[in-house]
Amino acid sequence: MSKKNIDKVTIFALGGVGEIGKNMYVVQYANDIVVVDSGLKFPDVDMLGIDVVIPDITYLLENKDKVRGILITHGHEDHIGGLPYVLKHLNVPLYATKLTLGLIENKLREANLLGETKRHLINADSVIKLGSITASFFKTNHSIPDSVGIALDTPEGVIVHTGDFKFDQTPVNDEYADLHRMAEIGSKGVLALLSDSTNAERPGQTGSEKSVGVVIEDIFRKAKQRVIVATFASNIHRVQQVIDACEVTGRKLTVIGRSMVNVVSIASELGYLNVPDGMLIEPEEINRLSADRVAILSTGSQGEPMSALTRMARSTHRKVDILPGDTVVISATTIPGNERDVGRTVDELYRIGANVIYGSGSQTGVHVSGHGSQEELKLMLNLMKPKFFIPVHGEYRMLRQHGLLAESVGIDKSNIFILDNGDTVEIQNGAARKAGKVQAGNILIDGLGVGDVGNIVLRDRKLLSQDGILVVVVTLSKQDGKIMSGPDIISRGFVYVRESEGLLDEANRIVTNTLTKLMSDNVNEWASLKTHVRDALGRFLYEQTKRRPMILPIIMEV
Amino acid sequence: MSKKNIDKVTIFALGGVGEIGKNMYVVQYANDIVVVDSGLKFPDVDMLGIDVVIPDITYLLENKDKVRGILITHGHEDHIGGLPYVLKHLNVPLYATKLTLGLIENKLREANLLGETKRHLINADSVIKLGSITASFFKTNHSIPDSVGIALDTPEGVIVHTGDFKFDQTPVNDEYADLHRMAEIGSKGVLALLSDSTNAERPGQTGSEKSVGVVIEDIFRKAKQRVIVATFASNIHRVQQVIDACEVTGRKLTVIGRSMVNVVSIASELGYLNVPDGMLIEPEEINRLSADRVAILSTGSQGEPMSALTRMARSTHRKVDILPGDTVVISATTIPGNERDVGRTVDELYRIGANVIYGSGSQTGVHVSGHGSQEELKLMLNLMKPKFFIPVHGEYRMLRQHGLLAESVGIDKSNIFILDNGDTVEIQNGAARKAGKVQAGNILIDGLGVGDVGNIVLRDRKLLSQDGILVVVVTLSKQDGKIMSGPDIISRGFVYVRESEGLLDEANRIVTNTLTKLMSDNVNEWASLKTHVRDALGRFLYEQTKRRPMILPIIMEV
Repeated sequence: MSKKNIDKVTIFALGGVGEIGKNMYVVQYANDIVVVDSGLKFPDVDMLGIDVVIPDITYLLENKDKVRGILITHGHEDHIGGLPYVLKHLNVPLYATKLTLGLIENKLREANLLGETKRHLINADSVIKLGSITASFFKTNHSIPDSVGIALDTPEGVIVHTGDFKFDQTPVNDEYADLHRMAEIGSKGVLALLSDSTNAERPGQTGSEKSVGVVIEDIFRKAKQRVIVATFASNIHRVQQVIDACEVTGRKLTVIGRSMVNVVSIASELGYLNVPDGMLIEPEEINRLSADRVAILSTGSQGEPMSALTRMARSTHRKVDILPGDTVVISATTIPGNERDVGRTVDELYRIGANVIYGSGSQTGVHVSGHGSQEELKLMLNLMKPKFFIPVHGEYRMLRQHGLLAESVGIDKSNIFILDNGDTVEIQNGAARKAGKVQAGNILIDGLGVGDVGNIVLRDRKLLSQDGILVVVVTLSKQDGKIMSGPDIISRGFVYVRESEGLLDEANRIVTNTLTKLMSDNVNEWASLKTHVRDALGRFLYEQTKRRPMILPIIMEV
Repeated sequence: MSKKNIDKVTIFALGGVGEIGKNMYVVQYANDIVVVDSGLKFPDVDMLGIDVVIPDITYLLENKDKVRGILITHGHEDHIGGLPYVLKHLNVPLYATKLTLGLIENKLREANLLGETKRHLINADSVIKLGSITASFFKTNHSIPDSVGIALDTPEGVIVHTGDFKFDQTPVNDEYADLHRMAEIGSKGVLALLSDSTNAERPGQTGSEKSVGVVIEDIFRKAKQRVIVATFASNIHRVQQVIDACEVTGRKLTVIGRSMVNVVSIASELGYLNVPDGMLIEPEEINRLSADRVAILSTGSQGEPMSALTRMARSTHRKVDILPGDTVVISATTIPGNERDVGRTVDELYRIGANVIYGSGSQTGVHVSGHGSQEELKLMLNLMKPKFFIPVHGEYRMLRQHGLLAESVGIDKSNIFILDNGDTVEIQNGAARKAGKVQAGNILIDGLGVGDVGNIVLRDRKLLSQDGILVVVVTLSKQDGKIMSGPDIISRGFVYVRESEGLLDEANRIVTNTLTKLMSDNVNEWASLKTHVRDALGRFLYEQTKRRPMILPIIMEV
């Protein structure tokens, strides 16, 4: 880097830092913008009624003609789930490996966008020219096949994005992480590394996926009746190991749950699953076979109320019942926030009389993480030897821990950037600095509405959820302001009306008295009338119940 | 038991089995009822707006004159929190050890019930005659001092209730669990054992409280600035160890958070905390001291939004700020469901620049559980050698695991009873059987309302929280049914009104058209009008938005 660059490279996240989910990273050099991933996030508990959350892409829309493409690291929802929304407004070339592209196309088909989009199949050997930036790739291990890391060669230097990764020395599909290419990239010099921080708080090394296969096979051998395995649909390696266990123990397999059926079909078609002929059977067929010849692969590892496993546990599934003596394996980690739902499902399975194998941590061996632990994160840092380090893909505390790991392998503290979404890092002539902020944030999707639910709507939903609502309607005469009809009080979510007649009658009297008094004082602006009614009623109800329902006064005039 | 008993002993839970919380157990022999504990539970996520949950005590109220007393095992909320509600309607004698009684009296004082109640101080050597049942006690280790187990000697045999317990071989207060008395009770013969199942899923042995003290002292020694420790207020042993660490390292201590201030004051008064003179200072004084001479003891270990730690982390606490370089220790386990709140607090503390030590499990050593793990549960079973076993205090899966542990130490499977709240076990002449059910359930408390929020109100709150509400008001003429005013549509929590004028205008037209059409068809019963409006509007809004707000049509007549 002897000659001076006039331009600079700018790096920022539109999603994925300070949170788990909606990953979207941007690298810009002069007039060339490259986007890495385009994910969604599931709503926080306080985002009432929201279906999903996607990144705010205002910056990309304002610089539409500079965006050279979107590169996808792997096929998980938090990396591809935002694409239907993003591509609708930003129809730029999309690059992804085979399985990832298969999953994306399924998604775009459902959104009626398949025809219009510009999709490009890549593999780990592809080299893509994106204006002044050249992208190449390296294979990684993760809980979904066909995951890649990305090296972006810019005039300022190479920026590496790891994607989600672990180092699995005994991977299920024999697709080893490409240590040699990583070493090669590292030895040529990496300007900046963006690396997965999910397990930065976890010491040691994440277990190999193959270790789970051994445990599952053992469970299949010992089970005297049917075995039901619940896992994430996208965990194709895990699915393969269930198929393998079926083969070894002579069981037929039925697949239930919409996303599981979908993914198994896509992955089989594309050659990522090896399913012996005649192994898969329809759910309707299982009762014709002896129980020790049957296994069931199912969604619902998070105890989701509408999932196949939950419905089976509650005996409300249309096709499959779980019977006493069946073995249920929950082969997944419980995502924080889902503990109660998973616990409830386990309880219900026990009540049926099933044997349940569910993993609090590593005890049972039926699950390993897809993300590298501290030793693997350090290995990646040591392979890449970056000058600058930006931990990504994690809550703030995880980014912070990852930063400490980077310091521990010798990266200068001042060269480590912990970012919020929208914070930019500019690198020019080998010097990096935190620069300004681009617009970034959560776009909430509720039904068909994209971004039409804001803080006011959420605040109202929160209020309504706590103490309900009281609607007070009164009709006034246009001539003399006298009450012509009402006040009528209707409540929802406040008190059970039949048992609270006295309270509501008294509330009615208070509204009538308040209005009559105001009228005799010649107060007749509606806003003022409403405020007085709301205050008087709110005070009374709080005294009587210590609750604060939303009060909605409505005045009609005839 | 050579002579035949005409009467039987009946055992059941009114709360505490199939759940964590609202513990209340009942032992009845003939006309004598003894109650063990009277706790509350914090609401599940789907109990929107509910403050706390207590057991349904209908059975006790219907048998008021038979209830000989309530025995309390220890002073945690899930064992004493229901007392203000229960004693109000069932003013029977109450028996508790010194610290437990101190905490109860504080609670009753706040509820203005102190004067009326019949409170009796007991210690581990007390023997209480309760009709035909005689209660004696034995010391246990738990995360609050003065915890006891209870042996109820009935004409049918001895029923033992362990309370919450662990076996701590190096307890902080030198109050050892009374192994000898337990052994004595066991060797005399135990008819039935009810034992704490909280950690039945956890292998091995729970760590000693003293091990935490070592870690905390080490943190205090190394910290260059202030140390802030957040823990449960009731964990007096932990508080003592923080005080000890202050003494050894020459720090002054300030206590913040209402419940922490309360408990520290009660425990000091009663002699359960040993605080060196001059160690405690007011929050206002800390800034006068050098940072390495100060420690802060705080509530907020669960990331509760209004707690002291959370407010300090957000820099909204009135008196205390956390400064860059301060060390914050979260010395508590995260209760399932609170992971996000705790994570958010940790993130905020890191953003301030604090060092945060928080325990994912045993990694950091800053917390141990107060409940025994599998080896301790087996030790209790082996000490007591009960004929019948009823695992209590836990979710169904924990009770189930505890049952398996009992089997593993030789208890006959048919002598193990896993109960739901209200299920009774009857024992007569040495034979036990599951008998009928007494009324049991959740009584929801919302503000001043006890039990007035039922399923309909909760369902409405749920609906309101998801998609909000639309109120449609119209005034019709009494004479000819013509629309005199409206329809007016007001929405809350549905869409942001300013950006949805078109939608609401169209909704308005649909209501007008629907009503006009019905009127011309001479449909004029209100119920029918309302149903048609609700259906037409609901259909339209779902088509347009894929949301289903609650629709509340209101018809006024003048």
